[in-house]
Amino acid sequence: MTAQPLPDSSIASLMKPLGDAARGAARALARAEGARRNQALAAAAANIRAASSDILAANERDLAAARQRELPPAMLDRLALDDARLEAMAAGVEAVRELPDPVGQVMAEWERPNGLRIQRVRVPLGVVAIIYESRPNVTADASALCLKAGNAVILRGGSESFHSSRAIHACFGPALTDAGLPSACVQMVPTTDRAAVGYLLSEMVDAIDVVIPRGGRGLIERVQREARVPVLGHLEGICHVYVDRDADPDMAREIVLNAKLRRTGICGAAETLLIDEACADEVVRELTRALREAGCEVRGDESIRALDQGVLPASEADWSTEYLDAVISARRVAGVDGALAHIARYGSGHTEAIVTADPQTAERFLAGADSAIVLHNASTQFADGGEFGMGAEIGIATGRLHARGPVGAEQLTSFNYRVRGSGQVRP
Amino acid sequence: MTAQPLPDSSIASLMKPLGDAARGAARALARAEGARRNQALAAAAANIRAASSDILAANERDLAAARQRELPPAMLDRLALDDARLEAMAAGVEAVRELPDPVGQVMAEWERPNGLRIQRVRVPLGVVAIIYESRPNVTADASALCLKAGNAVILRGGSESFHSSRAIHACFGPALTDAGLPSACVQMVPTTDRAAVGYLLSEMVDAIDVVIPRGGRGLIERVQREARVPVLGHLEGICHVYVDRDADPDMAREIVLNAKLRRTGICGAAETLLIDEACADEVVRELTRALREAGCEVRGDESIRALDQGVLPASEADWSTEYLDAVISARRVAGVDGALAHIARYGSGHTEAIVTADPQTAERFLAGADSAIVLHNASTQFADGGEFGMGAEIGIATGRLHARGPVGAEQLTSFNYRVRGSGQVRP
Repeated sequence: MTAQPLPDSSIASLMKPLGDAARGAARALARAEGARRNQALAAAAANIRAASSDILAANERDLAAARQRELPPAMLDRLALDDARLEAMAAGVEAVRELPDPVGQVMAEWERPNGLRIQRVRVPLGVVAIIYESRPNVTADASALCLKAGNAVILRGGSESFHSSRAIHACFGPALTDAGLPSACVQMVPTTDRAAVGYLLSEMVDAIDVVIPRGGRGLIERVQREARVPVLGHLEGICHVYVDRDADPDMAREIVLNAKLRRTGICGAAETLLIDEACADEVVRELTRALREAGCEVRGDESIRALDQGVLPASEADWSTEYLDAVISARRVAGVDGALAHIARYGSGHTEAIVTADPQTAERFLAGADSAIVLHNASTQFADGGEFGMGAEIGIATGRLHARGPVGAEQLTSFNYRVRGSGQVRP
Repeated sequence: MTAQPLPDSSIASLMKPLGDAARGAARALARAEGARRNQALAAAAANIRAASSDILAANERDLAAARQRELPPAMLDRLALDDARLEAMAAGVEAVRELPDPVGQVMAEWERPNGLRIQRVRVPLGVVAIIYESRPNVTADASALCLKAGNAVILRGGSESFHSSRAIHACFGPALTDAGLPSACVQMVPTTDRAAVGYLLSEMVDAIDVVIPRGGRGLIERVQREARVPVLGHLEGICHVYVDRDADPDMAREIVLNAKLRRTGICGAAETLLIDEACADEVVRELTRALREAGCEVRGDESIRALDQGVLPASEADWSTEYLDAVISARRVAGVDGALAHIARYGSGHTEAIVTADPQTAERFLAGADSAIVLHNASTQFADGGEFGMGAEIGIATGRLHARGPVGAEQLTSFNYRVRGSGQVRP
């Protein structure tokens, strides 16, 4: 761990070999059977269990430094590991091992009139760089998913979790070599110097096929500003629940409470409640009161505050704030079109839900909301690869290229075309 | 057309409104029925036919300037339009109109144990910027494909074809408004100032969803260096044909001649011939002589020159040169693994072919060559969306994210997840 910024030449001499090694490891991985990758995953899970006391000791170092820096309790909680979390981490690696092997899957197959037989076949992406913040479990989750998909990975965790991540990373090297794979299939940037991220984003175009940033707005904006390598973006989730005039009030209440409060710190948590102007006053009051009684602060527009005096005033900034906390903004809108207009203006393209009993209104919303995930009569907290049946995920991509929505092993692949002929030439 | 570089403020004031208008047009397009987009395409084709004399006059202006600048004949040929080429352009737009509508297609559909029904549905990408060079027909082809896929497009053609492209572009505006769509669905950068490209690449992150560069190495490298927007890369095609020890000599000759010489100016043309060391001398001689007799210059390594004195010496640079001309480099390699090693080192990830009668060798090559398209016993000139049965294409993408290989209307789409429930909340 580096306390002082390193000179540019040191950064280059640290990072360039990482890139070269990753490229070589990716080539070896692309040739390796799926059984080898699975063997490495099984061994990594076993190593995590066997190294639990080392990992917890490293985590204690990170926690001590974080307490000294007086980091907020939510961040300390994200950082903290215990036996249960370590076991969940190891079990997560095993669950990824159990997923079907995406590499070599024939995605499509057809024959041309001239007899050429064309296949589209999944292949690894190559080298994936993951830049993340305080959660140390990302070290294991991301490494496992990348390995499953046949990719080499370069990890750059947050400085708060540096020792924890390093201890988890140490479980992968021996697992890889035991399986006959290069330990460089999973590498970790060996410094917390911020310049290393700059170098990775701008100077490693030949070494890295895609960068996946996981974290807050500051990180994402830095990556978008500096990256010369392709980025699979994971923007914040400004998720909306729209309660339509034709919503069943009980269903609306259950969905709103779950979408906001089941877990407030995940990107699929609802941040804004949109209520149809045509809803009865009593329906509005019931929603805001239920939220407040469940411990949620509600910040509403004038029309909502007029109905429930416990609602605080919302400012313009509230409509584009990801609280990740027990706070929700609330506004009345002119029907489904009003809701769609609000979402187009303030949303982050992540996840939106409508509650309505009218199928036509639902279809209008599903077709009109331009977000990665759009739900009818279900909670936004279903925005999750596991809930979609895709296994583990690295996150929810909010960009429009390549992967959108949950990014699991399958989304971490590319493909190529394999054409079999019998001497065809083109006329 | 601007002869003097514009000040930065003028570039911004030209380009920013283009971006805003494209974003608005993309929203309108995303809501429009496929029938409207098809109506606009039919009208655009009719307008191209009706405006043929205007387009040819504009083309004559470009040609006169190009002759004055003494551009090479190959470039003049790429630039020149005539009645037949105009008719092909109009017919091309109509062919795109006939393609199945990708927008709204359900790509996958499944139900979860909790009753949630999940669909993955194709949606437009949004705003596509195309940066291309001298071929004016790209103006019509790219506009048609983007429209078909529900995208707004911003075109930036080469300065050599500026007037031609402007005349072709003028056929789309009225076609769009007649169909009830904004004319800003197809816009053209109104200046040839190079700073406009820089602005587009670096300042229009919010306005543009993807940039597709079509052109030579200089353009592609500039785009990769400057782009802050996502890029769908179309690298040059350093395509290889590998003739294996088990190749049928006649098939090998037919495929090599076709791959190199059917058309030398396309990206799928072969540039390097790799011949197994284990091939008989006579097979090698027959290949190089057939090429030379067909008018192709052959630049070979020492072992090939020893067999055919008409072969010129190849330098190291030849292995990474895209000739786009009747020139081929030739080298003997140590079997299929030697061929794969050469391709990994010098290839551009575009298209490679193997000629062999041994199915195991063929499979080793198909699995081992990490290029967008890999063929067995067929010519590299099949690297084409039309030949794949995908309709028209913008080009062959050589990147690993999103689209790889031929980029047609389907590849110009994104998708989202639409989830239908009955009140589900997440436990």
